[in-house]
Amino acid sequence: MADKSEKTKARLPRGFADRSAEDIRAVEKMMATIRSVYELYGFEPVDQPMIEYTDALGKFLPDQDRPNEGVFSFQDDDDQWLSLRYDLTAPTARFVAENFDKLPKPYRSYRSGWVFRNEKPGPGRFRQFMQFDADTIGTPGVAADAEMAMMMADVMEALGIKRGDYVIRVNNRKVLDGVLEAIGLGGEDNAGRRLTVLRAIDKLDKLGPEGVRLLLGPGRWDGGKEGEGDFAKGAGLNDTQAEAVLLATARNGQAAQDASVNANAVYQEGVGELATIEALVRAAGYGEDRIVMDRSVVRGLEYYTGPVFEAELLAEIPNDEGQIVRFGSVGGGGRYDGLVSRFRGEPVPATGFSIGVSRLMTALKNLGKIDTSDVIAPVVVLVMDKDTESLGRYQKMVADLRAAGIRSEMYLGGAGMKAQLKYADRRGSPVAIIQGGDERAKGELQIKDLIEGSRLSAEITDNAEWRAARPAQVTVAEGELVAEVKKILAAQAEERAK
Amino acid sequence: MADKSEKTKARLPRGFADRSAEDIRAVEKMMATIRSVYELYGFEPVDQPMIEYTDALGKFLPDQDRPNEGVFSFQDDDDQWLSLRYDLTAPTARFVAENFDKLPKPYRSYRSGWVFRNEKPGPGRFRQFMQFDADTIGTPGVAADAEMAMMMADVMEALGIKRGDYVIRVNNRKVLDGVLEAIGLGGEDNAGRRLTVLRAIDKLDKLGPEGVRLLLGPGRWDGGKEGEGDFAKGAGLNDTQAEAVLLATARNGQAAQDASVNANAVYQEGVGELATIEALVRAAGYGEDRIVMDRSVVRGLEYYTGPVFEAELLAEIPNDEGQIVRFGSVGGGGRYDGLVSRFRGEPVPATGFSIGVSRLMTALKNLGKIDTSDVIAPVVVLVMDKDTESLGRYQKMVADLRAAGIRSEMYLGGAGMKAQLKYADRRGSPVAIIQGGDERAKGELQIKDLIEGSRLSAEITDNAEWRAARPAQVTVAEGELVAEVKKILAAQAEERAK
Repeated sequence: MADKSEKTKARLPRGFADRSAEDIRAVEKMMATIRSVYELYGFEPVDQPMIEYTDALGKFLPDQDRPNEGVFSFQDDDDQWLSLRYDLTAPTARFVAENFDKLPKPYRSYRSGWVFRNEKPGPGRFRQFMQFDADTIGTPGVAADAEMAMMMADVMEALGIKRGDYVIRVNNRKVLDGVLEAIGLGGEDNAGRRLTVLRAIDKLDKLGPEGVRLLLGPGRWDGGKEGEGDFAKGAGLNDTQAEAVLLATARNGQAAQDASVNANAVYQEGVGELATIEALVRAAGYGEDRIVMDRSVVRGLEYYTGPVFEAELLAEIPNDEGQIVRFGSVGGGGRYDGLVSRFRGEPVPATGFSIGVSRLMTALKNLGKIDTSDVIAPVVVLVMDKDTESLGRYQKMVADLRAAGIRSEMYLGGAGMKAQLKYADRRGSPVAIIQGGDERAKGELQIKDLIEGSRLSAEITDNAEWRAARPAQVTVAEGELVAEVKKILAAQAEERAK
Repeated sequence: MADKSEKTKARLPRGFADRSAEDIRAVEKMMATIRSVYELYGFEPVDQPMIEYTDALGKFLPDQDRPNEGVFSFQDDDDQWLSLRYDLTAPTARFVAENFDKLPKPYRSYRSGWVFRNEKPGPGRFRQFMQFDADTIGTPGVAADAEMAMMMADVMEALGIKRGDYVIRVNNRKVLDGVLEAIGLGGEDNAGRRLTVLRAIDKLDKLGPEGVRLLLGPGRWDGGKEGEGDFAKGAGLNDTQAEAVLLATARNGQAAQDASVNANAVYQEGVGELATIEALVRAAGYGEDRIVMDRSVVRGLEYYTGPVFEAELLAEIPNDEGQIVRFGSVGGGGRYDGLVSRFRGEPVPATGFSIGVSRLMTALKNLGKIDTSDVIAPVVVLVMDKDTESLGRYQKMVADLRAAGIRSEMYLGGAGMKAQLKYADRRGSPVAIIQGGDERAKGELQIKDLIEGSRLSAEITDNAEWRAARPAQVTVAEGELVAEVKKILAAQAEERAK
């Protein structure tokens, strides 16, 4: 027992996940499709490391209730602080600023990779997840934002999501910024309160207008009732101010605003830019069935300065608990004119889009849009004799199969024939090859069709019947191995296609 | 100036690198080839997160002179220590131990991804780098190790590296372990000294036998002479002991050993396993031109318990300084029977191989074995008029080109025509499309062949001659856009093929 107590416990840290073969293959397929759209639009791949100086990443995360303000950080041996990137945009900004003169402008690039958030994990909420971004840096015109929205729509359709099952929503941060300025929340002193407003609006879908009204005003108890859960401090707006904010961010809301709001230059600029984006995407043939203007979209990240977008799946999909729900956001982005500038002291306008890879893959899987069943498990060559000469012979069989492009392996465990066949079953192998001493003497081998075998064994319920039927198995001359396996695999493929 | 002093400096942390489009594409291609070999051998993808509990990763790194013993670590909010993985093997061991009953045994899996070392960075030595591993877990027999060596040889050849330009070297840790036991360095008390011996031998290529002899004995000054650089403490072996170690690890060394070494059971086991591996690979047709037994291979990681292997490029390749050098190791691995067991308290034998992705890619690039020149830069549609209607028209052109599978983009910067053409040049674009008001009125557009254009401009040295020649440019009807661009791209492809 002393032994057991000294064992290290094998466990994943909270909020992290292992990925299965099926998930990895599905993500690969999905990402290849996204990549092909980004490439077609003339974006080029580029890649930054996962660790950056903490000050270079900046602090723009919504969830700041946690240590290190939502970021994993550690000190280098020269005492400088390093952090794991929390998104792909901040490192891109650092890269572009550092290599500014070497890059063509506008700089069109894409990248995918893992990002990290030091947040409280929850169901479907991970501390390491993958994003797939495209960015255009060095272009002030909203034509670049319009292009982002259109490209996102193209990505959705390239992935097989039907028109009507998704929508790209577009808004402009300047609309809300203008309203906030008009109601007296402008200026550096109110930056904190503006952020609280932003994050309150971002919870509109989750909390509804009444919950958001509390967050805009005095604050709200997490549990929904006084004393339940933690208390979230509000932005301290009065009723008139809160009403103006809710009016400006109502979905499809273009309702009449207060005169002071209408007179606000930032507000008008935002409204004007939105109109231009709408005109551009309509001129390019993207109707309301693909891209809509929606004043309720704000995005949680602090660094957006103009147009913001969100890709939403409208399709109703069973969630992990089997309930049918609208899937919601699978990506988003916006204009971040300040991110590169803060390194360079000159304006470097930029816009970009980020896809939540795991989330989108979950959606595509539930929609039946990702099929990895074309990957065939390996043929298993059983090991009946373990002397070097026999092993060399089995090795030659797998080598011959591989040379013909057939996935195959020689069984390498220590078990007997029955366990070896069980292993092949567990792997989902299509075929097992058996050659014992008797077959060897005759220059023959046995080929077991495991798919047909398990189909037969499912149909045959009686033991005597089983022995009589003798599941799909053929004995062939050694030289026939590859041809015969090919024949069986072809028959199985035909069966699957039915 | 106050402004400038407040700017954040855009800089990469030491030991980290950005990756260019060319590098990313080259790595993708190379990894697709490696993956196809692993798949053909019946390995399945699996993936672990980058962060693990520190105790689950264990401490097996060679470079322990640095804080956190070579690993990036930080405390979670529940005070548990987390680390960035320093290789892919330790997380795999955790995963297999945690999911043991659910997995087929042997468990054959592969994975690729970034790993992190908190080490002193240097030229070609990064703190984040990529590995690509394959592992067979749950098999005690050296047939699994033999398979690893053969698969590595197959990977090298699949990547286009000619036989004779690489070799897979195989040794067995038990040989050295047996010698150390025989000379009195066995037992738990001597674990530290054994590790020092191991790391000394691993530097044989770098320091030569005399440098290693110092590390085996009293210790060695980094600079090579007394007082130069740091002093590395030695293992404290006497001359006879050091001689036995050097004898046992001499390349191709199977020289007569001391009687006490020959009588050592672990030594004999190691020698026997090596002979079996050699017999197995020879029986499978892998000669000395692919796989050799080499007693000098020990590998730096502490966790190996049996056979160890190394893939070495023999080709002589120019290094970054232009010197022709033998490229050296591009991957390695070995048997690590203790790694999974330490979680489970039962023996779980395992063996695996790891490819250093960046290093191998550098080698392939220098050998001319990776060609990414088939990626064509996007066609650029110039923006001559910026009203919404014109933008819609340019947008339609790129949409038509993309629908035909041609990479293309509308210029989104703020510059005039000359700068736009310069941009297209900088991107390496094959073609630029121009339509101003005049062309528009006639329902025409201009197509510039930028490749032919720059070829002509290189040949024509005289300015007058230039204007007369008028670089490759055609005017076509709007409806001819796609067909004409296709024609030009085909002509360029033909030119490149020559």
